Amino acid sequence: MTVRTPDPNSGWLSDDELASIRLRLPLLYVEAIPVRVDGMGQVIEVGLLLRATSVGGMKRSIVSGRVMYGETLRHALFRHLEKDLGPMAFPLLPASPTPFHAAEYFPTPGVSAFTDDRQHAVSLAYVVPVTGTCDPRQDALEITWLTPQEAASAAVSDEMEGGRGILLRAALASVGRLG
Amino acid sequence: MTVRTPDPNSGWLSDDELASIRLRLPLLYVEAIPVRVDGMGQVIEVGLLLRATSVGGMKRSIVSGRVMYGETLRHALFRHLEKDLGPMAFPLLPASPTPFHAAEYFPTPGVSAFTDDRQHAVSLAYVVPVTGTCDPRQDALEITWLTPQEAASAAVSDEMEGGRGILLRAALASVGRLG
Amino acid sequence: MTVRTPDPNSGWLSDDELASIRLRLPLLYVEAIPVRVDGMGQVIEVGLLLRATSVGGMKRSIVSGRVMYGETLRHALFRHLEKDLGPMAFPLLPASPTPFHAAEYFPTPGVSAFTDDRQHAVSLAYVVPVTGTCDPRQDALEITWLTPQEAASAAVSDEMEGGRGILLRAALASVGRLG
Amino acid sequence: MTVRTPDPNSGWLSDDELASIRLRLPLLYVEAIPVRVDGMGQVIEVGLLLRATSVGGMKRSIVSGRVMYGETLRHALFRHLEKDLGPMAFPLLPASPTPFHAAEYFPTPGVSAFTDDRQHAVSLAYVVPVTGTCDPRQDALEITWLTPQEAASAAVSDEMEGGRGILLRAALASVGRLG
Repeated sequence: MTVRTPDPNSGWLSDDELASIRLRLPLLYVEAIPVRVDGMGQVIEVGLLLRATSVGGMKRSIVSGRVMYGETLRHALFRHLEKDLGPMAFPLLPASPTPFHAAEYFPTPGVSAFTDDRQHAVSLAYVVPVTGTCDPRQDALEITWLTPQEAASAAVSDEMEGGRGILLRAALASVGRLG
Repeated sequence: MTVRTPDPNSGWLSDDELASIRLRLPLLYVEAIPVRVDGMGQVIEVGLLLRATSVGGMKRSIVSGRVMYGETLRHALFRHLEKDLGPMAFPLLPASPTPFHAAEYFPTPGVSAFTDDRQHAVSLAYVVPVTGTCDPRQDALEITWLTPQEAASAAVSDEMEGGRGILLRAALASVGRLG
Repeated sequence: MTVRTPDPNSGWLSDDELASIRLRLPLLYVEAIPVRVDGMGQVIEVGLLLRATSVGGMKRSIVSGRVMYGETLRHALFRHLEKDLGPMAFPLLPASPTPFHAAEYFPTPGVSAFTDDRQHAVSLAYVVPVTGTCDPRQDALEITWLTPQEAASAAVSDEMEGGRGILLRAALASVGRLG
Repeated sequence: MTVRTPDPNSGWLSDDELASIRLRLPLLYVEAIPVRVDGMGQVIEVGLLLRATSVGGMKRSIVSGRVMYGETLRHALFRHLEKDLGPMAFPLLPASPTPFHAAEYFPTPGVSAFTDDRQHAVSLAYVVPVTGTCDPRQDALEITWLTPQEAASAAVSDEMEGGRGILLRAALASVGRLG
């Protein structure tokens, strides 16, 4: 039997290595807010994922994940959309690679509007229309579609972690659908 | 036989009235650069219209037209896309209503990078992916699909009027495809 | 006594003419949200104007005004900033002419998030840091400086007309200061 | 004699560690194109740094550097501006934290428009007006101020490494000064 040793140059990181790097360098993430648009391109619904938390509760979240070594932002975005929404979501990635916001997550509250107790992460965030059927994978239990008004509510923000309610409202503002 | 008199509140303008207003007020336009994108949202082709000029020559242009009274920017954009590209172009209007550029056209050269000898116009410009078949209408003879590199060339700019070659390069820059 | 006849090409419009055009064409506006920034460019305060309304009440507003024939967006922005904030405000106009939002005001509610019972107007909106002393002019009684949190509150939105509370929150989102 | 051991949680990285991480993770950078603006905020000059290369030649570059663990994007931007332009440059950091472009540098040419043979880096790029006196530090020999037209030329692009001529033209496009 052959045990495969990870290629040290491969971008593969063991849990220990990642844990160590997380205390030394800001990590690069992409995040996506899935939306449905009408025939004129206007956002009419926002998709939020429901996940179980480690302490047995539930929280709402958005599509989120790390950019790997050698991977373009577009490929990272596509990979995480497929991972979280399934292969039939048919996302329409934006023609422009400029995020609507660069969200800065710090372990310590108060440095910015966003927190992540695991690490310092900088996340490039995008609004992504999806045209197919979403079938949440992995740890997401379901996707809920809300109107822009519902998504912007304080009640929804309270169910999101790390300040992502603020990011969600910024996403709505960027597509002219806040308030 | 009934002669219909235009409703003075309708937004309808006679040629004389429009000619008069053109010397008194900036007019609001929308412009669109039609593009084709790959499965990752990346722009791979740019569509330019070929039109006959009043002096018997040919020029390349983009989708362009006035915003009417009571009309949203999205509806104006959609109407002009359909007028110039036909009903089967299936444009994907952007979720964000913010233009990549607000182009200012003045009758006098040198005020800005853009000129229009008929009027002072301010044009909100968008990059719009199209997914169907383009069948140019009205005064446009055909649509030509160019690579981003071709579209950014000096040769193509020279065939465009009013500085639209600059607008085209700004469009390419906004989608990360300039150079 | 000499009666001066307006030059028909001057961009000058009588009240009657403007009233007539307001029912026929969308008018182009610029709007500015004055802010104070710290040494790192971060917005720390937002300036709102207090104006008397025609019905004897008070409302909060932002810098706003029409773009004249032949005038660049920058000059219109500067002129209205000086008119509303006085000559010592020393605004820092943005290097980028792209607005953070193109706000569409319609006489009829429900067409968009913004209303203006006088007209259909499209307003290019900017966040503008000011570095000097603001001394409101004309019909503005005073300028009040609020924190981003205060400016984003429902109480402040309720004191603004035509949906400008939404525009204010979009402005805060565009500078990463919403919530 | 006391040998100081780096705190493993400090964000400090030895050359070996950094070399190892460079082959495993994308690194986060900020880049700034220093500009001078006129009283209306319009960009009139672009500042390029001249640096000696490791092979004895010269190249033009922009302000660029890594974001450290625990550091905000604004602080990283400010730190690198000060390092490259000196303490009297008085940069005006943008109110908006959204970059005009997220430039992706890969060791392998062809993945994107940008290359960096040391690493995979993602750089958030900003146009930053400076109001003081620039006094290049460290390895930069001087700063040269060019007009937007000169900065956009092919001759200047040829003197820049890693595709930064493209980034420079995208910067000019983002402030309406390309061509």
